[in-house]
Amino acid sequence: MPELRQNILLKEWVIIATERSKRPDQLREEKLNCESAYPSHDENCPFCPGNEEKTGNTTTLDQMEINGKWHIRVIPNKYPALLPLDDGFSVNTSGFFRSMDGIGHHEVLIEHPQHNLTVALYEPTHVYHILRMYQKRMAHLMSFPYVESVILFRNHGSRAGASLVHPHSQIIALPVIPRDVMARMNESIRYHEEHRACIFCTMLERELEAGTRIVYESEYFVAFVPYAAFSPFAVWIFPRKHKSSFLYATEEELADLSVVLREVLRKLYFGLNDPDYNYIVRSAPQGYSHTAFFHWYITIVPRLTRSAGFELGSGMFINPSIPEENAAFLRELVLPSD
Amino acid sequence: MPELRQNILLKEWVIIATERSKRPDQLREEKLNCESAYPSHDENCPFCPGNEEKTGNTTTLDQMEINGKWHIRVIPNKYPALLPLDDGFSVNTSGFFRSMDGIGHHEVLIEHPQHNLTVALYEPTHVYHILRMYQKRMAHLMSFPYVESVILFRNHGSRAGASLVHPHSQIIALPVIPRDVMARMNESIRYHEEHRACIFCTMLERELEAGTRIVYESEYFVAFVPYAAFSPFAVWIFPRKHKSSFLYATEEELADLSVVLREVLRKLYFGLNDPDYNYIVRSAPQGYSHTAFFHWYITIVPRLTRSAGFELGSGMFINPSIPEENAAFLRELVLPSD
Repeated sequence: MPELRQNILLKEWVIIATERSKRPDQLREEKLNCESAYPSHDENCPFCPGNEEKTGNTTTLDQMEINGKWHIRVIPNKYPALLPLDDGFSVNTSGFFRSMDGIGHHEVLIEHPQHNLTVALYEPTHVYHILRMYQKRMAHLMSFPYVESVILFRNHGSRAGASLVHPHSQIIALPVIPRDVMARMNESIRYHEEHRACIFCTMLERELEAGTRIVYESEYFVAFVPYAAFSPFAVWIFPRKHKSSFLYATEEELADLSVVLREVLRKLYFGLNDPDYNYIVRSAPQGYSHTAFFHWYITIVPRLTRSAGFELGSGMFINPSIPEENAAFLRELVLPSD
Repeated sequence: MPELRQNILLKEWVIIATERSKRPDQLREEKLNCESAYPSHDENCPFCPGNEEKTGNTTTLDQMEINGKWHIRVIPNKYPALLPLDDGFSVNTSGFFRSMDGIGHHEVLIEHPQHNLTVALYEPTHVYHILRMYQKRMAHLMSFPYVESVILFRNHGSRAGASLVHPHSQIIALPVIPRDVMARMNESIRYHEEHRACIFCTMLERELEAGTRIVYESEYFVAFVPYAAFSPFAVWIFPRKHKSSFLYATEEELADLSVVLREVLRKLYFGLNDPDYNYIVRSAPQGYSHTAFFHWYITIVPRLTRSAGFELGSGMFINPSIPEENAAFLRELVLPSD
């Protein structure tokens, strides 16, 4: 019998379609992984070292260097979705057709000089430096008075929307708080009012009690497949300690997170053969950085299924796999030695 | 300057990314159209005539025949997302992990005996018969007491999630009302309370006044690119007459709609070279069939862009094209004679 499970953070139902359920080997990608498919340097790639001047992306907003060479580099997106505020902006929210100037920021964080790597293949210390740079850029962007929320994400592979192979993350600073972000906020406020507890802390407790959906645990973090995962092998990484904003993760916590994030991505890389994926750092929007109800986390979404008319029509999702089976597969996977 | 536009039906902002804006010829598909790419009959296709017995889909729920041969056939989905209620079902909404049995219906409507056609290539009368069958099946599914809403949709092409080429639509009857469906309902209630008017009727009036986003008009329907379209060449078809449910469209209205729907899909087929797309009939859920605030409509979404980490992370969308330019292109397109 198929099952409907409620994603308690959005109060939305997800269909766990047992009748069309797929095993991990049916979802595993049949393709070359990124390290085999691409060269380590591509002279036509705008993100490869040596091309900083040749391409349009000459502005460096920030970088992390070792011995005078950049290891991580932040640049403005060449085709920005939004542009920084110049001198005042116009908002028209009185009539029927409402608009505002598209102010904001759109940055690209080039993660590594090497063209064909991905997070699963970096050294843990390199992942740590990326996380530190995320924090630094997010803090900078949150300091603009017109920025209401910051979306920090990574697209890996074309099915995940990546248009360039070279490993990179993106940060978009918005002049609004998106509806879905507010919906999560409102549900967590409602839960807190009813139970005097953080819904995320409670979920973490219950997941640890149940154990069946846990993928990986460390001192400061727990990775698990959510009970109502909307797609196969989705993984959430929750900090054990309640904090609303990623900005307040300590250096020690980020060092620990770099191990957990890399380990989960290694499990996907080796277990499912380098699937395309997105990950998102869900951190509190402006004004919610220190709350008892919101708790920051990371969501990883392998792109193994496609959204079709049903998803567009309903906003609901059909997951053709069983979260407990996904978690067991990832938890028990024996990784190649590092 | 990029622009943010508010989708007033969901109170959500859409980024109209002028800095990355693409012209129609940059979005036009480079591939064979479905009629050239596939044979008119495929003996391995479970939906082709002659295979009714050979495949698992032997049950016929309904069909439209001419001279003893089926022209439209409705069957249960072989891999249903949900299953009909047998004798009682279990709901567990008391604890933290909430679930219910996946009861409902999942039907496939095989639209035509010929393997390589699509709506744009049917005769208008054939489109009319499909719409009549949609209405008949929806009425049947809405009669089950445990069905709360019905999602009627069509996936065309693999990027739109179609796993089989043979032209078909799907109908999923759910035991819940999806969150997005309720969000639209709640916004339209709020608008009605504030303005004593239907938000959809008002939008239609304003679109007709503006004129710049109109694609096609008929006696009973208006097709237009919405002001805050979340993706390129999205088209909404609104009935001029206020009705909450598709079920109450008259035969005369359906005959007119068959011309409009086909004409809009022909514009996409010939103008953008048979892009993959989804369409959805947005009709009132159970209990809202006769309201002053909700108004049924059809939404057509060509799949010319991909959702990536930003969309997953925010729920917002970036449209790399200008709705007014999309509409002008479709409106002014000269179609091959019929």
